[in-house]
Amino acid sequence: MKNNYYHENKNEITLFKMAAEQRVPLMLTGPTGCGKTRLVEHMGDVLGREVITISCHDDLTSSDLVGRFMVTGGDVIWSDGPLTKAVKEGAICYMDEVVEARHDSLAVLHSLTDHRRTLYLDRAGETIPAPDTFMLVCSYNPAYRSSLKELKPSFRQRFVTVAIDYLPADREAEVLVNEADISLPVAERLVKCANSIRNADDVFHFEPPSTRVLVTAAKMIASGASELEATEVCVLAPLSSDGAIASGLAELAAAHLLDPETNNSNNN
Amino acid sequence: MKNNYYHENKNEITLFKMAAEQRVPLMLTGPTGCGKTRLVEHMGDVLGREVITISCHDDLTSSDLVGRFMVTGGDVIWSDGPLTKAVKEGAICYMDEVVEARHDSLAVLHSLTDHRRTLYLDRAGETIPAPDTFMLVCSYNPAYRSSLKELKPSFRQRFVTVAIDYLPADREAEVLVNEADISLPVAERLVKCANSIRNADDVFHFEPPSTRVLVTAAKMIASGASELEATEVCVLAPLSSDGAIASGLAELAAAHLLDPETNNSNNN
Amino acid sequence: MKNNYYHENKNEITLFKMAAEQRVPLMLTGPTGCGKTRLVEHMGDVLGREVITISCHDDLTSSDLVGRFMVTGGDVIWSDGPLTKAVKEGAICYMDEVVEARHDSLAVLHSLTDHRRTLYLDRAGETIPAPDTFMLVCSYNPAYRSSLKELKPSFRQRFVTVAIDYLPADREAEVLVNEADISLPVAERLVKCANSIRNADDVFHFEPPSTRVLVTAAKMIASGASELEATEVCVLAPLSSDGAIASGLAELAAAHLLDPETNNSNNN
Amino acid sequence: MKNNYYHENKNEITLFKMAAEQRVPLMLTGPTGCGKTRLVEHMGDVLGREVITISCHDDLTSSDLVGRFMVTGGDVIWSDGPLTKAVKEGAICYMDEVVEARHDSLAVLHSLTDHRRTLYLDRAGETIPAPDTFMLVCSYNPAYRSSLKELKPSFRQRFVTVAIDYLPADREAEVLVNEADISLPVAERLVKCANSIRNADDVFHFEPPSTRVLVTAAKMIASGASELEATEVCVLAPLSSDGAIASGLAELAAAHLLDPETNNSNNN
Amino acid sequence: MKNNYYHENKNEITLFKMAAEQRVPLMLTGPTGCGKTRLVEHMGDVLGREVITISCHDDLTSSDLVGRFMVTGGDVIWSDGPLTKAVKEGAICYMDEVVEARHDSLAVLHSLTDHRRTLYLDRAGETIPAPDTFMLVCSYNPAYRSSLKELKPSFRQRFVTVAIDYLPADREAEVLVNEADISLPVAERLVKCANSIRNADDVFHFEPPSTRVLVTAAKMIASGASELEATEVCVLAPLSSDGAIASGLAELAAAHLLDPETNNSNNN
Amino acid sequence: MKNNYYHENKNEITLFKMAAEQRVPLMLTGPTGCGKTRLVEHMGDVLGREVITISCHDDLTSSDLVGRFMVTGGDVIWSDGPLTKAVKEGAICYMDEVVEARHDSLAVLHSLTDHRRTLYLDRAGETIPAPDTFMLVCSYNPAYRSSLKELKPSFRQRFVTVAIDYLPADREAEVLVNEADISLPVAERLVKCANSIRNADDVFHFEPPSTRVLVTAAKMIASGASELEATEVCVLAPLSSDGAIASGLAELAAAHLLDPETNNSNNN
Repeated sequence: MKNNYYHENKNEITLFKMAAEQRVPLMLTGPTGCGKTRLVEHMGDVLGREVITISCHDDLTSSDLVGRFMVTGGDVIWSDGPLTKAVKEGAICYMDEVVEARHDSLAVLHSLTDHRRTLYLDRAGETIPAPDTFMLVCSYNPAYRSSLKELKPSFRQRFVTVAIDYLPADREAEVLVNEADISLPVAERLVKCANSIRNADDVFHFEPPSTRVLVTAAKMIASGASELEATEVCVLAPLSSDGAIASGLAELAAAHLLDPETNNSNNN
Repeated sequence: MKNNYYHENKNEITLFKMAAEQRVPLMLTGPTGCGKTRLVEHMGDVLGREVITISCHDDLTSSDLVGRFMVTGGDVIWSDGPLTKAVKEGAICYMDEVVEARHDSLAVLHSLTDHRRTLYLDRAGETIPAPDTFMLVCSYNPAYRSSLKELKPSFRQRFVTVAIDYLPADREAEVLVNEADISLPVAERLVKCANSIRNADDVFHFEPPSTRVLVTAAKMIASGASELEATEVCVLAPLSSDGAIASGLAELAAAHLLDPETNNSNNN
Repeated sequence: MKNNYYHENKNEITLFKMAAEQRVPLMLTGPTGCGKTRLVEHMGDVLGREVITISCHDDLTSSDLVGRFMVTGGDVIWSDGPLTKAVKEGAICYMDEVVEARHDSLAVLHSLTDHRRTLYLDRAGETIPAPDTFMLVCSYNPAYRSSLKELKPSFRQRFVTVAIDYLPADREAEVLVNEADISLPVAERLVKCANSIRNADDVFHFEPPSTRVLVTAAKMIASGASELEATEVCVLAPLSSDGAIASGLAELAAAHLLDPETNNSNNN
Repeated sequence: MKNNYYHENKNEITLFKMAAEQRVPLMLTGPTGCGKTRLVEHMGDVLGREVITISCHDDLTSSDLVGRFMVTGGDVIWSDGPLTKAVKEGAICYMDEVVEARHDSLAVLHSLTDHRRTLYLDRAGETIPAPDTFMLVCSYNPAYRSSLKELKPSFRQRFVTVAIDYLPADREAEVLVNEADISLPVAERLVKCANSIRNADDVFHFEPPSTRVLVTAAKMIASGASELEATEVCVLAPLSSDGAIASGLAELAAAHLLDPETNNSNNN
Repeated sequence: MKNNYYHENKNEITLFKMAAEQRVPLMLTGPTGCGKTRLVEHMGDVLGREVITISCHDDLTSSDLVGRFMVTGGDVIWSDGPLTKAVKEGAICYMDEVVEARHDSLAVLHSLTDHRRTLYLDRAGETIPAPDTFMLVCSYNPAYRSSLKELKPSFRQRFVTVAIDYLPADREAEVLVNEADISLPVAERLVKCANSIRNADDVFHFEPPSTRVLVTAAKMIASGASELEATEVCVLAPLSSDGAIASGLAELAAAHLLDPETNNSNNN
Repeated sequence: MKNNYYHENKNEITLFKMAAEQRVPLMLTGPTGCGKTRLVEHMGDVLGREVITISCHDDLTSSDLVGRFMVTGGDVIWSDGPLTKAVKEGAICYMDEVVEARHDSLAVLHSLTDHRRTLYLDRAGETIPAPDTFMLVCSYNPAYRSSLKELKPSFRQRFVTVAIDYLPADREAEVLVNEADISLPVAERLVKCANSIRNADDVFHFEPPSTRVLVTAAKMIASGASELEATEVCVLAPLSSDGAIASGLAELAAAHLLDPETNNSNNN
């Protein structure tokens, strides 16, 4: 199944399997769009377990995780939340961008992430031991931490932490070809262009372009956009609206791309 | 249908079509009233899809987007929100001024804006894959960003970003004639007047007058107001209540408009 | 009907009629108590339309404007808010002190104040096109803006903006005579007194006394208070509780009023 | 009826009657415990109208003032709040310490305090014109204003403002004798003691002792406490817990009171 | 009954009785654990009245004090809160640490603490005059005031204020013997140790150890702990986790206690 | 039962028993993962009492502790919270990380932690005396205190406070062998590695690695990870994402671990 295709970059698949075997929770770190979600979906296939995904945000309450009482036909019945479902079904529960969640919501994870492996539903008065196949996986982007929102050290220490990074250039170009039906030379030019911007990251301090935006750019090219147009609207425009930075980046990008008028890339 | 008339300024219609074809989400940026809403309505006509518009604001919850349970006849039934309706019907969902929304509300968009193209209704326990015709379009005005409210880089990278700008002078005058039934010379004087204020923007730091306010001024003129009166109440008064700035702008404006006493414009 | 009597000061009645004819929204600006509410009530009579008034405040939700679901006999039925009523009935909806409203509540006004002239009731799933007689009128006092609460420029640009100012002295005296049954010389002394305080405004930085407080002072005089007593409790006491300023203002006032002991005004 | 006994200090009873006659709202200002509440209760007796008192606080919503819908037997019925009751019954509505109220709650008072004299119940969809006997009276203590909480100038201008001050010494002593059954010389010493502290107010910056605390001290003396004891626990202890200030005040107080050992007051 | 045993330190019992006789509210101030709660319980016994205790906190609403409507069998019935119960039954209502309460919650106390002695239940539409036996007693710890949370001067002036302090050394030792069954010499050493720390308070700025912690230490000794161990875990550990301060205090404490190895106290 | 195995480090078991005997509440302090939860579970076994655990967090209301009314079949019935259950059953109630709780929620503990040993359920109108076997145990990590969140001194003084520290090296290695089935030499190297990082704590200011993370590292090794790999993902990665610190720590760690290539540890 194409969507769940994932190419191991370092040892993240091995470590994921070990954590699953030892029934310890896993934390994936790395830049936006480097493939953390795809790794989890891939491992769901490999391990033969369902993946239940929760996109974390500021307003996620513990009730959104574990469930709540709801009125039906005049009566009040308990309705499981996605975390409770994952525990009951022994699924992989994937909490995306966990640092965004309200920290108090994370307290319900304590008893699931130490030797107890148990979910306490205080409001329902229930105690659910996690089956061996249940696994909690969280992700966050450390480059992203605002001073206001950091995971507490004691929370981080509950997880095996695996860092995910960008793909090497040849693998990333391969992904573009697979996903967007463009030719390999075009894909290679897009990756070179992206890497030149990623390397300029220390100077400009923005979130560097992800594999995901390159896939989108490749798709726009497949629909007829020029390489410059596609790079402009998919890679450059989301980075910065500051005029000086934008034109610096545009120059950097143009050096690697096919000039639609001469049909040559300047730096190839 | 007159309301959905839209004149392409650069390549925004082409890029919109490509994004629709590739099923990737679109972000429109540009100053207030430059025609972003009209472009979306026009493309709904062109692509033959319904447009469902959501005006974003500080208090927009994810329930307002996806729906909520409601009590009817003693029972609780799920009621779809506008985003869920748009996904189910394969419509264009247009989120106007998305930067105004509470960022946690935007988390429900994550799975719709990457390779999954799926809406998860956690509270209803439902998963809705988006049909190919579903398209998410957002807009925001980058000149407007307060330091407190910015779209997260990882969110911006989920979109193809197309910048919309003011119309060229002749096209803008044409719009005024079409919408308000005034003569072309009057329309041209109003546009000149607006452009002189827009160029003074760097000095005065206010939101420059939009095509929309020129249309309103033109309508007031059509109802009998003098050009100076209409410009005063539609263009100048909303800009600033600071006396010094106001009289500077009034002078600037008067230079381009018909003096009702001499029936001559000074600068024509 | 006496209450809705209004005397045009500049061209505000003409501009109001033009805006009504062109179906564009109107913003009235000016100091407290200068007659904005009366102008709207007067125009309701002139145009033969109902006026529905909404006093804006910090806690006004969009549900308070458009309506909400309510439980009746076990069922949930929709109940229109005052804005929805005004749209359905083609009335003038007057939002007093709109700058006080929570800005997110104002987002529901967007589609009513541009070319769409349509109210979207997201929660009720209804779309209501405004009839031609519907008109939105807002007011605010620009001298009043705290740094925390300003109308957004893009919001201000949606309105024709008409500034209302104090009445000229003879007209204001006439209003006092009409409303409070006092003699013209007394009314003239009260207005002179008020204008001397209004001119001192730049020095003292307080909200200057409105026509409304003069009417109240005139009524107290009609009940037997001396001019000094009435001015003290109606005009001066609400201005400032700072001792030095208060006695400065009292001196200023006394110079224009009838001294109850000598029965002469000092400055007449 | 003893509780509603009130001795006019300046012209506050006359002004209250005039405001009632002219149907304009009244604002009473003055230090804590100087008798504002008693004046209102007294005037209720004089004018033969019921007084409905609302103690304002940070959490007073407009629903607490006007009423709310409540579920009874499965149905929802409207229940009037104290303001609505006062309007319907033509009573005096007394809002104590109005500056403490959330300002948005005060917006419902706008239409009651200008020429409209009408209460709009937006949520109930009802409009109630106030009968002639309805009167709104508010109070606040200007010495008390924190920078965060001030009445808006436009709100203050809606009221006839009458300042209430401490009673003259002989009248205050008379009140103590009446209320607490102590002898006149004891009462006179308590008042002298209080006035010496009130005069030290500028140096120490605390809320000066009110007539109310003197009444309490007098009652403690009537129960057997010495003058020094009663002054300590009723007058001095509530003023300050700063050691240096406390002993300074104690010395000041002792100078005016009967020394229980010598049976002489030092300063008599 | 042993629990309600209380030894008068100064004149607090007399003053409490006078306040009860005069039906005025009482405020008890003093350091943590010096016996304020016990005094109130003791006076309940002495006066033959029930004591209803309310522990105040940040989230205590006025509904928690006076009561609320509750749904039962489809209908809504009023349920009295502890303050309302105390008023109806003529009990002593003891509000512990009243400074912690939300100040808006305290507004319901106004009419109970002046000459009206009446509880207004706005939401229930009821007015309850307090019987003569009803008494309101509040407590707070003035050393504790954060700058954010202080009782308002006008609120403090509503109470007779009685300061409670630590017991004299011999009385405190007697309490330890009574409560924990330890020998008098051990009790005396614990009290000496506590007093040496209390005197060091000005240097170290912590909340000094209360009689309550000494009772707990005495109980630990009765269970077999050494004096040093008991002082460490009951007296010193809660004071500070700063290493330098902790060892300074430990030295101070050790000088007064029995050394378990030599069976001598160093400073005896 | 293996999970509740606990090795006494100092005198914490003895002190826990004494506190239980004397019916006084206990506070456990110490770094994350040093075994506080295990001690409580172990003592539950030793004393033959159930342990009811509550993970404290920012959003824990007093209703979450004591219970709430819930609608069932149209009626409202009271449902006990975990604290109420623990009191009724005479269990040990363990509040983990009590400093995280909203302080107002802690007010319900006051009457349980002094001589009253009584739980007041204000909303249910019930009073529950705690049986002798009920014991309240709280924990917090003092190294962790933010300036915003500290336990109040008066709250800390209600507890016997016992500090828990890391196990001595040989005991900690023994735990690793027991929990993860690794050989003793490997366990000893992991503990040495952890202790070198714990000693570097003063320089780096991070939360030092707990016994819990060593157990996890040991499990990863048991699943086939090298010592360096396991230390990287379990011990080092959660500590810091700062590049310089991370490589300093990695060097420190490597010095104690088996080099997978030479099969020798450098520092053994």
